[in-house]
Amino acid sequence: MQIDLNADLGESFGRWTLGDDDAMLEVVTSANVACGFHAGDSSVLRRSCEQAAAKGVSVGAQVGYRDLAGFGRRFIDVPPADLTDDVIYQIGALQGMAQVAGTRVRYVKPHGALYNAIVHHEEQAAAVVAAVVAYDPTLPVLGLPGSAWLRQAREAGLTTVAEAFADRAYTPEGTLVSRREPGAVLHDPEEIARRCLAMVVDGQVEAIDGSQVAVTPGSLCVHGDSPGAVQIARRVRQVLTDDGVTLTPFVQGTR
Amino acid sequence: MQIDLNADLGESFGRWTLGDDDAMLEVVTSANVACGFHAGDSSVLRRSCEQAAAKGVSVGAQVGYRDLAGFGRRFIDVPPADLTDDVIYQIGALQGMAQVAGTRVRYVKPHGALYNAIVHHEEQAAAVVAAVVAYDPTLPVLGLPGSAWLRQAREAGLTTVAEAFADRAYTPEGTLVSRREPGAVLHDPEEIARRCLAMVVDGQVEAIDGSQVAVTPGSLCVHGDSPGAVQIARRVRQVLTDDGVTLTPFVQGTR
Amino acid sequence: MQIDLNADLGESFGRWTLGDDDAMLEVVTSANVACGFHAGDSSVLRRSCEQAAAKGVSVGAQVGYRDLAGFGRRFIDVPPADLTDDVIYQIGALQGMAQVAGTRVRYVKPHGALYNAIVHHEEQAAAVVAAVVAYDPTLPVLGLPGSAWLRQAREAGLTTVAEAFADRAYTPEGTLVSRREPGAVLHDPEEIARRCLAMVVDGQVEAIDGSQVAVTPGSLCVHGDSPGAVQIARRVRQVLTDDGVTLTPFVQGTR
Amino acid sequence: MQIDLNADLGESFGRWTLGDDDAMLEVVTSANVACGFHAGDSSVLRRSCEQAAAKGVSVGAQVGYRDLAGFGRRFIDVPPADLTDDVIYQIGALQGMAQVAGTRVRYVKPHGALYNAIVHHEEQAAAVVAAVVAYDPTLPVLGLPGSAWLRQAREAGLTTVAEAFADRAYTPEGTLVSRREPGAVLHDPEEIARRCLAMVVDGQVEAIDGSQVAVTPGSLCVHGDSPGAVQIARRVRQVLTDDGVTLTPFVQGTR
Repeated sequence: MQIDLNADLGESFGRWTLGDDDAMLEVVTSANVACGFHAGDSSVLRRSCEQAAAKGVSVGAQVGYRDLAGFGRRFIDVPPADLTDDVIYQIGALQGMAQVAGTRVRYVKPHGALYNAIVHHEEQAAAVVAAVVAYDPTLPVLGLPGSAWLRQAREAGLTTVAEAFADRAYTPEGTLVSRREPGAVLHDPEEIARRCLAMVVDGQVEAIDGSQVAVTPGSLCVHGDSPGAVQIARRVRQVLTDDGVTLTPFVQGTR
Repeated sequence: MQIDLNADLGESFGRWTLGDDDAMLEVVTSANVACGFHAGDSSVLRRSCEQAAAKGVSVGAQVGYRDLAGFGRRFIDVPPADLTDDVIYQIGALQGMAQVAGTRVRYVKPHGALYNAIVHHEEQAAAVVAAVVAYDPTLPVLGLPGSAWLRQAREAGLTTVAEAFADRAYTPEGTLVSRREPGAVLHDPEEIARRCLAMVVDGQVEAIDGSQVAVTPGSLCVHGDSPGAVQIARRVRQVLTDDGVTLTPFVQGTR
Repeated sequence: MQIDLNADLGESFGRWTLGDDDAMLEVVTSANVACGFHAGDSSVLRRSCEQAAAKGVSVGAQVGYRDLAGFGRRFIDVPPADLTDDVIYQIGALQGMAQVAGTRVRYVKPHGALYNAIVHHEEQAAAVVAAVVAYDPTLPVLGLPGSAWLRQAREAGLTTVAEAFADRAYTPEGTLVSRREPGAVLHDPEEIARRCLAMVVDGQVEAIDGSQVAVTPGSLCVHGDSPGAVQIARRVRQVLTDDGVTLTPFVQGTR
Repeated sequence: MQIDLNADLGESFGRWTLGDDDAMLEVVTSANVACGFHAGDSSVLRRSCEQAAAKGVSVGAQVGYRDLAGFGRRFIDVPPADLTDDVIYQIGALQGMAQVAGTRVRYVKPHGALYNAIVHHEEQAAAVVAAVVAYDPTLPVLGLPGSAWLRQAREAGLTTVAEAFADRAYTPEGTLVSRREPGAVLHDPEEIARRCLAMVVDGQVEAIDGSQVAVTPGSLCVHGDSPGAVQIARRVRQVLTDDGVTLTPFVQGTR
């Protein structure tokens, strides 16, 4: 039994540091590296790619809206054609860095408000799908199960990987409890790790009402910059490996 | 006899248009496409690459300082390691667009203040050379003959191409007359075209004092956005071809 | 009988020029000067304020989303508290320039997607109102009649000025015909000028279905950067003054 | 006996936090608040101004180059006229925030590479002086004793305040030891506090060679974001007040 562990990395910018990338890269198997539009300057991207390469961590393009001031967390009504081009630009830029670091971009995962938008926003979802198809139709994409993004990606012939969230509460229908609801985000490393194990080994997780819901993630997402992020990620990894689960990038590749 | 004609293109940004790229792409054989740091949004880059590809024009990465407000025309004392990474980022981003447009980045030409800085600034010249070497040591670089940039690039094993300027006056020593001097920039299409012909066919040009200086350009640079730019470029092309000179990208390649 | 004529100005940025501000400042009585977030660098703002002051044109703060790449034309879901602060920042910055130019900011008019958003978006409308109230509750605000923006501004005790659009078609209900509909934008200077006269003198305009709708604008908006903008604005001014209408800023003030 | 204690604040940006502003505002008497060009978004500026106002801390405009990616630490060869306008823009924007917070901008202190440049760069020094003169010639300016900046400001009739650095080593000539030299930056809170006391009470400080050099600071600068910054600042304040020195803004004012 095996699973991928992904986290957002490379989100520092210039003088500003965010998260403990070096520590996280010891834990995760896939790094969603920011591409400069919502975070990540050129040197941050390079170091992220180099460290990921050195540690055998898979590099993904964490593409977002062009919005440093908002960290990509504000929906922007970008016309689809422009969004497609912005995504291609970001993948290309990160690929340049990955190439220099001796690795390559192995998947695409939208960030923040873009991630959330394309759960339902069909036009923007189509725009991001179009970018990946145009850039490299063999690039897998990572996202929320049931999203317009993954559905359209699949219809376009892309390889899709659905992720589950290590520290988020689920509804009985298997969707995420809104962050506005109490209990939406879990904080206890033990509880989070136990839930991850259940998701991977049993294919189910306890919903917020106590019922069990089926989940079949191709990857588990852990947070990279929340308080306790590294500790939680380490505990998840420990509990999974103790139970015999192999942690490995969902996208294997050579170069 | 053959020569390459290059110009800066893709320098519009969002709502702001600069130059007549479509017209220039009918004239030049190499397009120095902006990469987003001094000019050029994602959609401008894409269109530039697509149009260049459609017209058989070679695409080069016109890398610059991260300075939209200054259009890359202000020297920035970027630490060399950061500059290297900024250049890689830009080449990668443009390569992503070029790939989608069915072509690829075939050379690198620094822009504006960076171009001027690395004529003499050894550390920044080394930084840009390091970027090209790290990204792809088979990429030719374009620049000013006698510059630290071309000298270091050559020493690093890169293919270098020296360019001459169609509309600039030369000193008897073969350097450019400073823009602060009267007569530094020529405006008459006929005179400019005649000088270009002399440079290509005779390997010499009349200096500002009337003497003849030797030039052996691998490419001729025409301006893309000055008043009369298109008219001048067309006249240069006409006069050269009328004299039997073949206009062709200095870098031939297929894909 | 008198009326104010307003247009967007100061929307150049660095190397990029937009519109013919000098010509427009000979025609309009109020200049909506960009504040640097969607357009307008510091020097453009200064020159706009200086020219406006020299010509007796009233300066207004044309506040927008922080989005140079999108020219402020893309809705951004900025949290209201942040939007309030962004608007204050922009007004303050322009006020600094106006002060240096010997004038001051006399009103606030949101730009582009923000203008459109706060026709209906109550939270963002409230955020912009809050900014003006906090900065200077004596500053009048300019906007679309019937908008949430003007309604909330009025409720908050601000002076509101409703504008009519010189070159836009109206529905029989007195709202603007969507730009997606045919005939939404008028281009004939004579027709535009005639409609303006009717709006000012008769208090009505012919709707797209031929019916007459009542309008009582405190200001007429003419475009600053469309093709023929200057010619249209001049014609509007000519026809109005020929008919005895005095063109004067809606906000008179001294300093 | 009294002295002012100043530190850089308001240098967070969007998602990225820098320094512990709330703690520093308990210690310093003057806050050099970033203005958005090198750091500081609108909401950070507002909160900085509000907190400073609440704690009776004087607000200064910490103006810098337009360079978020470089945090204003890279020299940019901005043409003087543009630099003047950029400085006016920044002061105005911060003044807008200060006004809303119930206070006002009481002085100007350049940041980072601009601070360093105008020690010797006469043209840029003149440009910043011109900005303050144009904006408000009663605004005091803060800087390095012996700098072109303070000399020109004085010649232009501005009130100048020379600052000493709490944690920097001095040469026997009274200039700062370059950060590239060993021992240039002090880290021990006790030693730093003792030196500050000597500077204020005795008007002298021990140079790096053991000799005593005269200093007569109008303000002491403590760092706001280095490791241990808050602890050092607190110790400086404690030692000074224990010795009977009153800490008070160099610019008193009411509003």
